[in-house]
Amino acid sequence: MLGAGSWGTVFAKVLADGGNDVVLWARRPAVAHAIDRRHRNDDYLPGIALPDDIDAVSDLNRALRGAEIVFLSVPSQSLRGLLRDVAPALGEHAIVVSLMKGVEEGTGLRMSEVVREGLGLPDERIAVVSGPNLALEIAREEPTAAVVASTSAATAMRVAEVCSTRYFGTFVNQDVIGTEFGGVLKNLIALAVGIVVGVGYGDNTKASILTRGLAEMSAFATTFGAQPDTLAGLAGMGDLIATSESPRSRNNRAGRLLGQGYTKDDVLRTMDQVAEGLASLEPVLALAAARGVVMPICTQVSQVIAGTLHPRDLAPHAVEDALPVGE
Amino acid sequence: MLGAGSWGTVFAKVLADGGNDVVLWARRPAVAHAIDRRHRNDDYLPGIALPDDIDAVSDLNRALRGAEIVFLSVPSQSLRGLLRDVAPALGEHAIVVSLMKGVEEGTGLRMSEVVREGLGLPDERIAVVSGPNLALEIAREEPTAAVVASTSAATAMRVAEVCSTRYFGTFVNQDVIGTEFGGVLKNLIALAVGIVVGVGYGDNTKASILTRGLAEMSAFATTFGAQPDTLAGLAGMGDLIATSESPRSRNNRAGRLLGQGYTKDDVLRTMDQVAEGLASLEPVLALAAARGVVMPICTQVSQVIAGTLHPRDLAPHAVEDALPVGE
Repeated sequence: MLGAGSWGTVFAKVLADGGNDVVLWARRPAVAHAIDRRHRNDDYLPGIALPDDIDAVSDLNRALRGAEIVFLSVPSQSLRGLLRDVAPALGEHAIVVSLMKGVEEGTGLRMSEVVREGLGLPDERIAVVSGPNLALEIAREEPTAAVVASTSAATAMRVAEVCSTRYFGTFVNQDVIGTEFGGVLKNLIALAVGIVVGVGYGDNTKASILTRGLAEMSAFATTFGAQPDTLAGLAGMGDLIATSESPRSRNNRAGRLLGQGYTKDDVLRTMDQVAEGLASLEPVLALAAARGVVMPICTQVSQVIAGTLHPRDLAPHAVEDALPVGE
Repeated sequence: MLGAGSWGTVFAKVLADGGNDVVLWARRPAVAHAIDRRHRNDDYLPGIALPDDIDAVSDLNRALRGAEIVFLSVPSQSLRGLLRDVAPALGEHAIVVSLMKGVEEGTGLRMSEVVREGLGLPDERIAVVSGPNLALEIAREEPTAAVVASTSAATAMRVAEVCSTRYFGTFVNQDVIGTEFGGVLKNLIALAVGIVVGVGYGDNTKASILTRGLAEMSAFATTFGAQPDTLAGLAGMGDLIATSESPRSRNNRAGRLLGQGYTKDDVLRTMDQVAEGLASLEPVLALAAARGVVMPICTQVSQVIAGTLHPRDLAPHAVEDALPVGE
């Protein structure tokens, strides 16, 4: 397990609880030491006791030695750099699994595409995991489920087997594109949900934005090769709902501030970390426009940010289409 | 508009705000009088001012005279009786629209089927409306959207036109079965969401239950002739989320009590009105079993009610399937 942020650390716990030998790599020796000796990662998971048998190290070669499956959970823009160090030490048959959500700036590549390029791996040695997976809740062993996707069904099954526990259920599919796009696009709709909640609207509006927002996500992702069923599943709908509900989500928080009338600059100033959705909104809309995908909710979010639409007028039905036909 | 409960009254407001001549029928003269003269329906919508131009009456024949479209919103078990009085006064070309969610006890018929039987109407004169439509929020003009379904596209469009306003968007489809089943099945999953919230679980668990629950709803409904897209839309996913989030939903409340360890008898005793989901759970599971539809979440709800599954063990993945394949 490479990366000892909140998600990497919790995933190491899932793997250990699933009965696997787990080595967790942290970039900072102090973090590795605290996990290894005191079974704690107080920076990211305050109050959580980790399994005793997680071996934590800050030496990458030691972490990779003999590893049959390598899980990745590092900041998305630092992935390519890490892969340069991973490549020479990676086992000949090792499977590499991305737990990460995002696209690489500049190239626009999904994380699994960066893995393929960075390590020169064939698709059947790559998998991704995604779903409604707020780390702290999984650390508390609250039941949830996730999707393991690989173009190879055998690879997906093999990965799913090692990361299934009583509180973490896994489903497998072969749609890597849809599974990864779900994790990217949900941030845009989470912004929209945050906006209407910030305005003060209730459960109907939220539910309508989520439903029509998922339809937009699905329209976009399928245009780029995803299967619609994937977006309707845990990596699409499931992750979208969890992100949009959680007060801990940065995208939800950024949206709420916009809904309360703050400008994008205000929001960027008050938040210590960037909300992924704010960064990916315009690139996604540009891609959508180029391929003729209609995204009324994302478009309205962009208008709210530009100051050309009042947050209270953001609607689940595009107002200019008096009567949209079909669902 | 026949029926002056909270939904019927709010829908009359939507129609009036959409620029239509609206006559609202209330069974009780006092209610009709209060709406007609004081523009209030304090029993159902405390604090809401209704449009001045809603004509409210308690004389059914007066309500039906000249009506081109008749909307129905009465308790589902009283529909058949009402239709007997409607039949002789119904205009020759009038369209009849059900706003109701439920199935008739004994016959198991959906509301539109009861309308067809009770009035002897052809399908092209019948439509249904469903979606994430908590009445009080619409009364406050918070934006939402709904589906208008009729086997006749022209009928659906005609109905959608009259009930579209700035705050109430309408989408049309021809899948009456899916639109109606969405409104019935969501109550079962809302029970499951209530249970996990009652236990104290967070957003991952809720999102997973909603996602896998919608998959069950879709499997059931499509077996009985629905289109999967309908369940993924406002009448399925949208209504499911709104119902599962709202503290005002009886099914959500019943679920939370079960999750806190109360028995079904306790729940029935403490609630003044019955939670629809508790009544329809076993009939739906029986139908599912007869047709080979697997419904792991509904089955677990039934086990919690029977006392054979602890609420904290209700999981989005059926525990007996160590590794469910596919989504």
